[in-house]
Amino acid sequence: MLEQRFLAFINDNQLFGSNDRVLLAISGGIDSMVMAELFHRINQPVAIAHVNFGLRGAESEADALFVQNKAEQYGVPFHGTRFDTKAVAAERGVSIQMVARELRYTWFAQLLDEYKYACLATAHHLNDTLETLLLNLTRGTGLAGLHGIASNQNGIVRPLLFATRPQLVAYADERELLYREDSSNSDDKYARNRIRHHVVPVLTSLNPGLWQTLPRTIERLRAAETVMQAELERSWQQTAEVKGQQISLPTTKLKALPELDFRLANWLKPFGFTDDQANQIANALNRPIGQVFSSTTHRISHEREGLLLEPLPSQLYPEITLTTLASGLVEVGGAFSLTIDEIEKSADFRPPADSAIACLDADKLQLPLTIRPWRQGDRFRPLGLNGHKLVSDLLNDLKLSRTEREQTAVLLSGDQIAWVIGYRIDHRFRVQAETKRIGRFLLNSKADS
Amino acid sequence: MLEQRFLAFINDNQLFGSNDRVLLAISGGIDSMVMAELFHRINQPVAIAHVNFGLRGAESEADALFVQNKAEQYGVPFHGTRFDTKAVAAERGVSIQMVARELRYTWFAQLLDEYKYACLATAHHLNDTLETLLLNLTRGTGLAGLHGIASNQNGIVRPLLFATRPQLVAYADERELLYREDSSNSDDKYARNRIRHHVVPVLTSLNPGLWQTLPRTIERLRAAETVMQAELERSWQQTAEVKGQQISLPTTKLKALPELDFRLANWLKPFGFTDDQANQIANALNRPIGQVFSSTTHRISHEREGLLLEPLPSQLYPEITLTTLASGLVEVGGAFSLTIDEIEKSADFRPPADSAIACLDADKLQLPLTIRPWRQGDRFRPLGLNGHKLVSDLLNDLKLSRTEREQTAVLLSGDQIAWVIGYRIDHRFRVQAETKRIGRFLLNSKADS
Repeated sequence: MLEQRFLAFINDNQLFGSNDRVLLAISGGIDSMVMAELFHRINQPVAIAHVNFGLRGAESEADALFVQNKAEQYGVPFHGTRFDTKAVAAERGVSIQMVARELRYTWFAQLLDEYKYACLATAHHLNDTLETLLLNLTRGTGLAGLHGIASNQNGIVRPLLFATRPQLVAYADERELLYREDSSNSDDKYARNRIRHHVVPVLTSLNPGLWQTLPRTIERLRAAETVMQAELERSWQQTAEVKGQQISLPTTKLKALPELDFRLANWLKPFGFTDDQANQIANALNRPIGQVFSSTTHRISHEREGLLLEPLPSQLYPEITLTTLASGLVEVGGAFSLTIDEIEKSADFRPPADSAIACLDADKLQLPLTIRPWRQGDRFRPLGLNGHKLVSDLLNDLKLSRTEREQTAVLLSGDQIAWVIGYRIDHRFRVQAETKRIGRFLLNSKADS
Repeated sequence: MLEQRFLAFINDNQLFGSNDRVLLAISGGIDSMVMAELFHRINQPVAIAHVNFGLRGAESEADALFVQNKAEQYGVPFHGTRFDTKAVAAERGVSIQMVARELRYTWFAQLLDEYKYACLATAHHLNDTLETLLLNLTRGTGLAGLHGIASNQNGIVRPLLFATRPQLVAYADERELLYREDSSNSDDKYARNRIRHHVVPVLTSLNPGLWQTLPRTIERLRAAETVMQAELERSWQQTAEVKGQQISLPTTKLKALPELDFRLANWLKPFGFTDDQANQIANALNRPIGQVFSSTTHRISHEREGLLLEPLPSQLYPEITLTTLASGLVEVGGAFSLTIDEIEKSADFRPPADSAIACLDADKLQLPLTIRPWRQGDRFRPLGLNGHKLVSDLLNDLKLSRTEREQTAVLLSGDQIAWVIGYRIDHRFRVQAETKRIGRFLLNSKADS
């Protein structure tokens, strides 16, 4: 029964074809082990990937071994890796969760690319969706925080989004599947458990059909957001007059728009303005001209003809130009430093798992290279992804703090971004089978520089 | 403290001016008694209205007396009325809740008009908002079901939407306010109580700041819906080609729209099509032409150039034309009957509280009158409301069943709707001080006809 529903969900949502090779992200917990079993039962070609974050000592090691054994039992390829997550987090001065997410997805992206898997599959299910929705609602959110993750986005598929946790548990029992208990303590595990054990049971008792209606509710909210974003984009295009580095927003056009506060908040967020500032800016339109508002990267002034948006004159540091890959230690203003060299590709070369190191195809890089702060509108093609992505969207996805966002720099080859420094390399500059020479870039941690 | 926040909320949201006379809907329960006290403390001119639905015998009578005494104590006008809610519900064959809501708002609308109050105030607070959101989420909903009621809409204001129930209770204790316990048992009271006592406490314990973030979350969702609706409307205008009674939706335009299922579901709902049908219609565009879908009022056929939407040829009953107000019993097809006569306005005339009876200004009615089923696009000006409203929106607000919606008819004077039969009269045809003669229309219950 669960197998049929699994297959129907995959086909209805066109997650992948029956001959596609799918990379499964398997932690060893019950959700992912059920997913692996379901993929096995439908005879889908798969490989299994497991990340050992080294956060729980011997337990982490045992998890990794358990998953590897299961892969052997299924007779499918196994990819394992190990990160010293705590050390990386301490070195970079960011949270363990942030580092774990980033390391994990960078590594998966490299596997997808290297082995040409069609997509990555994760084991999120309906309870995860509802718990996340309620958690976000509790903390305060917008529409995006309510509809949660999509079943198919950016090369990641979630083929269990049709199922509830009890259904997965029942399947594991029925098939006598083994799995590992997760004893980890993520930041929101306590809150999630409280919602799981005390809130969701009440809601399902009020409407036992909740699990049937939830996917439709979620789908409606997701569609509503897409339609809403289309209108935000359309009205921005109709309103914004771009003049070089400056953008003018005429008062008459702004005042004709319903929900101006909300539109401004969405439009101006990528320029570093807060919701509160957006409200103040909307109110400023009804006051005498002259008021000025600043984010850390931009300023908005209320002028006679409307709002004028422009980058702050002082950048964090000037652009740096590199004329050779054999540059050694390069100081970028007082902000950070890179160690850069050029090496031959060895036979046993593997892309680095640490996103603080970029290995790029030296023959594809066009000298001179440029290092500069990222800008609004910067786009690149993230490793493993088919399409382009705004750098601002990447930084949002990574949930960086405002300071981290501001300090992010990019490495350019010509006018193409080759590396969002410290986070993600560009697909076009990755090291491939035919690559001969490698440009190697190491972002030094602050302690070193 | 609560008084200052009350006043700030009224001013921030421009609910009414300091000299406006506000009609307070007061049940006698703690929420509404706190509201009455707050209005008293800020010296706002008010009147108090109380509806006795007669559902709880002596308790209902005692509630009415209690509220009347409080009005006398405050020295403000009191309006009371009594409905035999059960009898009306049984007679019309609809739910008690539906009848109670309809009777209540019809009566309030009449009071607003007759006494020229600026608006009606109800005592909804933040806990109501969160409970309704969670209840709707549990049952399945769209975006509108999550953002709940607005603080100011259609002449109804909710000045307590900034406050939580515990804050109102604390205020009642502090001021030693008396109130009546509500022992009523509405359809969703059980569910609401479970959410109130078992779900909300968990969520607030996870984020004690929930009550500060909730209004912002709600406001974001409401703005998102407005922006989304603007895009739905815009893309409908760009897509739909109206040719008399027919509307053509060209395939090429439809296929260019993201989230077509969702758009079709929203566009076609007023024509009686379900979400499931909308999905099927969207899928039909990828299949050979010829498929036909029907609602109870319209059909959509997939033709060479696109979708063709048209009214079903057979209406429920033909239009009826009345050449005199002294018509007596008028059978409308086999659907229902009206008893119609013309009377002098007596000195003690009061508008009927029963929405099955319409008293209209005879001199404003232009003969011949027409009775016909309501149509998409029909607009009128509901009693007590400043602006126009789509009949379809009224029927939606009333939460009528599909059958009830379909069977709804309108009475027209010229091309203006004078009465949405059985539900709401038009503001322009109401009986006023200068009215001399009254056209009286009585919708006979099915048992009688």
